[in-house]
Amino acid sequence: MLPAAAKPRFGRVALIGKLRSPESEKALGEMRAFLERRGCKVLAEGETSADLAVIVGGDGSMLAAARELVRHRVPLVGVNLGRVGFMTDIGHDDMQAGIGAILDGNYTVEERSLLDAEIRRGEGTVLRTIALNEAVVGKGSQGRLIEFELWLDGEFVYSLRADGMIVCTPTGSTAYALSAQGPILHPAVPALALVPLNPHTLSARPVSVADRCTIEILLVRALDAQAYFDGVAHAVLAEGDRLTLKRSTDVLRFVHPPGYRYFATLREKLHWSEAPLRKGRGTE
Amino acid sequence: MLPAAAKPRFGRVALIGKLRSPESEKALGEMRAFLERRGCKVLAEGETSADLAVIVGGDGSMLAAARELVRHRVPLVGVNLGRVGFMTDIGHDDMQAGIGAILDGNYTVEERSLLDAEIRRGEGTVLRTIALNEAVVGKGSQGRLIEFELWLDGEFVYSLRADGMIVCTPTGSTAYALSAQGPILHPAVPALALVPLNPHTLSARPVSVADRCTIEILLVRALDAQAYFDGVAHAVLAEGDRLTLKRSTDVLRFVHPPGYRYFATLREKLHWSEAPLRKGRGTE
Amino acid sequence: MLPAAAKPRFGRVALIGKLRSPESEKALGEMRAFLERRGCKVLAEGETSADLAVIVGGDGSMLAAARELVRHRVPLVGVNLGRVGFMTDIGHDDMQAGIGAILDGNYTVEERSLLDAEIRRGEGTVLRTIALNEAVVGKGSQGRLIEFELWLDGEFVYSLRADGMIVCTPTGSTAYALSAQGPILHPAVPALALVPLNPHTLSARPVSVADRCTIEILLVRALDAQAYFDGVAHAVLAEGDRLTLKRSTDVLRFVHPPGYRYFATLREKLHWSEAPLRKGRGTE
Amino acid sequence: MLPAAAKPRFGRVALIGKLRSPESEKALGEMRAFLERRGCKVLAEGETSADLAVIVGGDGSMLAAARELVRHRVPLVGVNLGRVGFMTDIGHDDMQAGIGAILDGNYTVEERSLLDAEIRRGEGTVLRTIALNEAVVGKGSQGRLIEFELWLDGEFVYSLRADGMIVCTPTGSTAYALSAQGPILHPAVPALALVPLNPHTLSARPVSVADRCTIEILLVRALDAQAYFDGVAHAVLAEGDRLTLKRSTDVLRFVHPPGYRYFATLREKLHWSEAPLRKGRGTE
Repeated sequence: MLPAAAKPRFGRVALIGKLRSPESEKALGEMRAFLERRGCKVLAEGETSADLAVIVGGDGSMLAAARELVRHRVPLVGVNLGRVGFMTDIGHDDMQAGIGAILDGNYTVEERSLLDAEIRRGEGTVLRTIALNEAVVGKGSQGRLIEFELWLDGEFVYSLRADGMIVCTPTGSTAYALSAQGPILHPAVPALALVPLNPHTLSARPVSVADRCTIEILLVRALDAQAYFDGVAHAVLAEGDRLTLKRSTDVLRFVHPPGYRYFATLREKLHWSEAPLRKGRGTE
Repeated sequence: MLPAAAKPRFGRVALIGKLRSPESEKALGEMRAFLERRGCKVLAEGETSADLAVIVGGDGSMLAAARELVRHRVPLVGVNLGRVGFMTDIGHDDMQAGIGAILDGNYTVEERSLLDAEIRRGEGTVLRTIALNEAVVGKGSQGRLIEFELWLDGEFVYSLRADGMIVCTPTGSTAYALSAQGPILHPAVPALALVPLNPHTLSARPVSVADRCTIEILLVRALDAQAYFDGVAHAVLAEGDRLTLKRSTDVLRFVHPPGYRYFATLREKLHWSEAPLRKGRGTE
Repeated sequence: MLPAAAKPRFGRVALIGKLRSPESEKALGEMRAFLERRGCKVLAEGETSADLAVIVGGDGSMLAAARELVRHRVPLVGVNLGRVGFMTDIGHDDMQAGIGAILDGNYTVEERSLLDAEIRRGEGTVLRTIALNEAVVGKGSQGRLIEFELWLDGEFVYSLRADGMIVCTPTGSTAYALSAQGPILHPAVPALALVPLNPHTLSARPVSVADRCTIEILLVRALDAQAYFDGVAHAVLAEGDRLTLKRSTDVLRFVHPPGYRYFATLREKLHWSEAPLRKGRGTE
Repeated sequence: MLPAAAKPRFGRVALIGKLRSPESEKALGEMRAFLERRGCKVLAEGETSADLAVIVGGDGSMLAAARELVRHRVPLVGVNLGRVGFMTDIGHDDMQAGIGAILDGNYTVEERSLLDAEIRRGEGTVLRTIALNEAVVGKGSQGRLIEFELWLDGEFVYSLRADGMIVCTPTGSTAYALSAQGPILHPAVPALALVPLNPHTLSARPVSVADRCTIEILLVRALDAQAYFDGVAHAVLAEGDRLTLKRSTDVLRFVHPPGYRYFATLREKLHWSEAPLRKGRGTE
């Protein structure tokens, strides 16, 4: 960690959260008052000139804010009001202590990679977007599997029939891809994971590739396929469409409060590798 | 195997297949001529009084025919024109030899269990259908996960957030459920497998239960969920809907040609447990 | 559950446990005093004429006692001093209430199947034993994989190179086999699961077969293979050895206290299908 | 690929292989004659000043030679006489064409990372060795699981009870770790995979970490644990032993013949992501 003096202070703070419930309304109000007491200028959600964005909500809110703010290079920190809160480091009860420490310069900054995604149809471009967690090509509501080819820097990887295909960043490797038996990638690994969704073969296995690669998914056969990006943006796909993914030149910056530990988060929030029962009083 | 004399002969044969291509048209024509040469009366597809149904096509055709014919107790045998043909025992090239042997009384009959499915909404019934392979409750095209409770004979099993849930018969355990890491159940095991689809927890595992159980899936939260039965029938689900599944009193009868072996089919058609490379000339 | 009057009472109780620690000594002493207060005759560990065996310890103690008592048809109940205690239904704190209820006739009895195992070498028999959980053929300390063939009622299943092979009962399906990605089998399913250990192929998958089958594992190639039965009995194997497994005519009887639920035990003791985080206060 | 003129030629070639069978003897003799016809000086196996090592055998021979030659910076190419031959690029039948092309300068060189391993007991060092594929801490012949802690750069990762633990390089990710459901890492990903062996919890998942990390495995509880390195070197471990792993400053150099493709090798040699049946003539 840099000495506090060497770190930029956060004078202009964007406060972001949905007023979905009395509880979130109360939490946002408290946070606004706290930030103002600490001398910060609290910006409205649309303003993108902030030094820091504080997101009060769940991983979904964090993801939506990150997608919005990444091109403005605003670093983010989350206060968890949600269920798992894998990306929202600070618990509701520790809200003022956690954000206070960060305003004191007591924090670390972690860069996370993201994907530039482009869907091309014939000669044209159908969609350009980004993905912090993952891009998914999946079957639609008819429930018919899709068939696609996967290419990496022009090398043919495989042709697969499956429910779909996930390409995820290390950040996304603990999100949807993990449900699909994908591998966990520590954020410091410069890689992407390619995780098929319910593949129609016994011998498929996820593979991780260097994140400087260009990945192309060519949709060969599909009745009503869809593309999803971080579960928020999506597009209807047609046979012959090509989804191209490569690492963005932008990076996302997460601000972590003191005491943040990646593996502790995995254990505590996902119950990763947890013993079946905490050590009892037993003699076994 | 019973002595041939003790077995019922197949005088009236339903010939089933789609005229999708010159090839399938040719195969159906040849099979019709062959059956007639062998003295069988060949019935039109709609007639359900057959002693035997010969399906010429892939597993999809076999499944559709089985769903139609099971209540009329017509036994089935398949000639594979398709890709995998896990249920269609007889290869295209062996068509006449295989069906000929069966007409000679040289066959085995295997019973397969199936599921009665009912979707209830409030006090009413939305859909009643059957499933030979599996019933699936899955998310729709919005791609948002669903939340449901699973109950077994009135005992709470679990509450899960997932892409969906598969309940499959032994026959279905080598179909879609296998893509979702479900367990293979030999057809002689009187069980059903409960296989979650991309569950939102690390500790989910499929479980197999006795097939005399009544299984209920209660849809707790869903944006646009769907129910699928053998991939053909389907229904849009609403929050609060209950899908009830229990073993049908009907059974499906597969007629196998001589030489049929379950595990050989697993190995040859699914490449199950196949060595990475056939034994080479090597010295390793 | 039968009415209490119709059930056999437990007058002679075997009390079983290791004096491994002051804690287990204390628990055994308390249980002995409690049983005597309730008018039971408490038998020494060697006596096999008991109406009921109360095991105080962990799953290991339960398993060892069960292996000893099954041929004497003594039903068992466990008090958990150990870590997970999947088979020991009654918690230490509920010891007197749980056993007391059972002595009052307030219980259910569940039968569990077990395996007869025989290792044959040439014409002779090397070992005959039983397995309540599982039989394992595994590599030894040299760490070289083994090669074996699996046969089922004389039908060839597959030839595999692997670290080993597990054949488990439903009871064993939540023990070692579960670590090896085996399927959970509800105790009411009359099946056995065949689970390879780290197989040297991408396309292996566990399969469950009817428990009336005879399973044979033929050791084709091995440097220093071992056979394990419930992790306690074991034998060194040689190339050409055949391990034969079939369901025993004996059954094990577990006595469950009131309120016992199979799926609740799975959830609570194995954290099976548990949500990543209990429903928070959140709005997500 | 560099222009041939810019590449070092291979004047001094070490020819390596075991004379295990008439076939390998014949292959080695032919290769020696071929190399001499091409003007190479063929060195004896012990000499380590070669420009290139040609290994004739299987992956085991390749691994043993690589472990020997890596510190002498001799690049390697393999001719496959074995079963899978994932590392031996050139088939027996293409032996002269493949090696001939390489001698003509028609090749690519790929660097592979390896691990420096050290076992420490108290203040002393028990063993120092390297691993190209993987380091394994595993249970011994008693078959009792081990308990260990995993630390990464001084951060606690988890405590686990399991059959063992694999730490593998990208090269090793397609070897033993793949049998244990580990993730495939493309050789260009600067990462290591941490793969537990049959962990005693449902929520364990492999994780990949940056290969600049120092990994420490602390053996907490073990009856007769063992450490294996590439399946060849091994050591008996005691409770309290610490195995430290970090990326070596040495790298291994594989020489690939023209036409080598990583993903093609995965598909062809491991049957990775292969369709259940090659596209038939079917209409499905």
